[in-house]
Amino acid sequence: MHDPLLLPELREMLNEQDVSAMQEFCEVFHPGVIAENLDALTTTECWNVLSHANVGRRGEVFAFLSLPRQMELVATLEKKDLTGLLEAMASDDRASFLKNMDDEQVELLLPLIAHAERTDIRKLLSYPDHSAGSIMTTDYASLPEGMTVREALSQLRHQAPDRETIYYVYVIDEARHLHGFITLRKLFLARSDALVADLMDTDVISVRVDDDQEMVANKIARYDFIAMPVVDDQGRLVGIVTHDDVLDVVQQEATEDVHRLGGVEPLEDGYLSTSFFTLAWKRGIWLVLLLVAGFGTSAILSHYNSQTEHFEWLVWFLPLVLASGGNAGSQSATLVIRALALGQLNRQTQFQIGRRELLTGLTLGATLAVMGFTFARFYVPTVDAAVVAGTVALVVTFGTVNGTLLPIVLKQLGLDPALMSNPLIASLSDMIGVLIYYNVALLALGK
Amino acid sequence: MHDPLLLPELREMLNEQDVSAMQEFCEVFHPGVIAENLDALTTTECWNVLSHANVGRRGEVFAFLSLPRQMELVATLEKKDLTGLLEAMASDDRASFLKNMDDEQVELLLPLIAHAERTDIRKLLSYPDHSAGSIMTTDYASLPEGMTVREALSQLRHQAPDRETIYYVYVIDEARHLHGFITLRKLFLARSDALVADLMDTDVISVRVDDDQEMVANKIARYDFIAMPVVDDQGRLVGIVTHDDVLDVVQQEATEDVHRLGGVEPLEDGYLSTSFFTLAWKRGIWLVLLLVAGFGTSAILSHYNSQTEHFEWLVWFLPLVLASGGNAGSQSATLVIRALALGQLNRQTQFQIGRRELLTGLTLGATLAVMGFTFARFYVPTVDAAVVAGTVALVVTFGTVNGTLLPIVLKQLGLDPALMSNPLIASLSDMIGVLIYYNVALLALGK
Repeated sequence: MHDPLLLPELREMLNEQDVSAMQEFCEVFHPGVIAENLDALTTTECWNVLSHANVGRRGEVFAFLSLPRQMELVATLEKKDLTGLLEAMASDDRASFLKNMDDEQVELLLPLIAHAERTDIRKLLSYPDHSAGSIMTTDYASLPEGMTVREALSQLRHQAPDRETIYYVYVIDEARHLHGFITLRKLFLARSDALVADLMDTDVISVRVDDDQEMVANKIARYDFIAMPVVDDQGRLVGIVTHDDVLDVVQQEATEDVHRLGGVEPLEDGYLSTSFFTLAWKRGIWLVLLLVAGFGTSAILSHYNSQTEHFEWLVWFLPLVLASGGNAGSQSATLVIRALALGQLNRQTQFQIGRRELLTGLTLGATLAVMGFTFARFYVPTVDAAVVAGTVALVVTFGTVNGTLLPIVLKQLGLDPALMSNPLIASLSDMIGVLIYYNVALLALGK
Repeated sequence: MHDPLLLPELREMLNEQDVSAMQEFCEVFHPGVIAENLDALTTTECWNVLSHANVGRRGEVFAFLSLPRQMELVATLEKKDLTGLLEAMASDDRASFLKNMDDEQVELLLPLIAHAERTDIRKLLSYPDHSAGSIMTTDYASLPEGMTVREALSQLRHQAPDRETIYYVYVIDEARHLHGFITLRKLFLARSDALVADLMDTDVISVRVDDDQEMVANKIARYDFIAMPVVDDQGRLVGIVTHDDVLDVVQQEATEDVHRLGGVEPLEDGYLSTSFFTLAWKRGIWLVLLLVAGFGTSAILSHYNSQTEHFEWLVWFLPLVLASGGNAGSQSATLVIRALALGQLNRQTQFQIGRRELLTGLTLGATLAVMGFTFARFYVPTVDAAVVAGTVALVVTFGTVNGTLLPIVLKQLGLDPALMSNPLIASLSDMIGVLIYYNVALLALGK
């Protein structure tokens, strides 16, 4: 929380029903700060305070409230207040909020909302999750062609109150085709009789409405934009994605990748906001899958173990050999998955990566084999230690190559490469590791 | 690359030494797009094009060039051109570029740079890595107190050319204490005789110069700012952190965490820009450490294995039992590490998390034990299957609790929680797993 002293003050205002103080509270602070404090009150108290703000402010603060609190308000507010709130929200905040509700709930609310807003909501809700369309706002500032700077500034003054940003302004024709963009800074510094068309950037970097949000984020990060225009397949402007939404996307996508890599189905809410059962389920499904894979390893092991009863030392190094392969594979998978997420890899570089990882695998495998041999010699004779060392070299090389290839294959299949989690790579590596270990042993030591 | 047709055009301009075309190229396109194309040319060609841009533009484009290309230019350019470039760069871009150079190289360059810029460079370079100070820019727009909107707008017009952003303007007194902030949008919409002091936000959310960059990023993400002011311990404004730098920080920190979790020392450059030896080293040190841990497991295993020669089936389920513990632990560690990175956990919630993870561990352990028992019964009698099931329950519970506690302990010690990588958790879990498995077996089955 931003200021720990605010909450007691707020409670006092409520006790005394100090309307002007509550109005001032809703005026002075950042909507995010207001929301943090309102989240700490009861739902009735929360609305008691918020109802003293003007309608525009209510929408802003509502967007910052926690999801459970938003839902409580939806359930308790009168229809009139609720639709007022929804109409006041920024179009992208509203769409992402409505996505959390049941379709029926949304259908009940929509008729109460003004027609223009309603059409906007339906449109935004129709874009698939994780697409540029699903995170964009339609509240962008635009200008027709052929204006002077003076005319443009006057137009912007009219548009400003309900635009998400007026710092980037897009120049469009009557069919909304995107022709250029200009910053408020440039307009502000220009001579007032200059033509916008002469000043604007005509090489507009844009994204398509069905582009993946991760690609949008990488592009905005690359070019340092405050906002990026979103166009349809005809090159018509349909919305903009702003810096703050992109920051959320980057954090959300990174969280998803991290969770997947750790073998957890990505959580949609924060760790603490996720219910116990959801969490247990999102972990459990992977653990069960990995357990089944583990029984595959058991089956292979039971087959070989009976043939190698005379070499009980083989068991001593079993976890070590399997872990080496799993660790090397996890490293490769992690590096490749992250590079894919950041858009650093493409078709041309795939072979380069494959070759490089093979070479890395061989180098690391050889190094670990030498160390493994040295350690193992403390326990077992030279030939046996050589079996351990040889196996380590092989499983590390195999692990590295598998860890690299599997995420790339998933990507090619249109799946999320991060599904190749560290535990899954380790499980696959276990099976291959047992096969390699016992075959090397049988070959070197005879039956 | 943004436009695949640009590069051939650019080569033609170079062949024909078409100066006006090169000037236009450097004018029209986004500096990032120009840099992408220049990166594909030789260093000489690159400078040949860039030298036709005006000095300000050169600095912008230079900041977008790849690091190797920047270094080549530094090595080949004449001192005069080089200092021109450095003086033209934004203060934060310049500082982060100079951080890549040797101290001696920097000391050779500094005397050639104008005094004011030099002082700024020394100051920015003095902030520790990953601090707010290390990512901020000193090119912020500010106003003295007591101005009218008209005066403020005229002041901003003067400041605009060399400010990173003029959309957020900070109001400071003579000692640079931060009193408020106002957006250009608000100034632009206000009556020109209104007082800035009446319009500005006085509840300014700021960060301290020594705050961690991750905290800065989480704050900007929370409140949707374009920029955030950075103050010293006296509350004096020393710089601002802008949205684009924060986006880079978020991607960089996520990459670090992902790499650590996968058991790789974080790469400073992209995966493909990192040299083979650096990459092998950053993976190798962890693999070697984990190999040593693996020999710990071998030592424990060799001790128990001799006591359980009659129960060869124990070996069959060894990888399965160890993997279950490692997987459950990786999941917990991943969830906790990510929640810590996003600032979602604090001291009050630690016990809540501990309790919850214990409960999750017991639930998941019990579920997997039931499944494990069912599968194991296909291979071994009931008592033996019960040993496997009981061990699975215990190692999953232990793994879950360890995976939760270890990152929190690291955090308390001031270390990066992400050091508790999935492979490391799995290694520790292997040792504990062997101990539990063989002790359960010896207890249940007798010697």
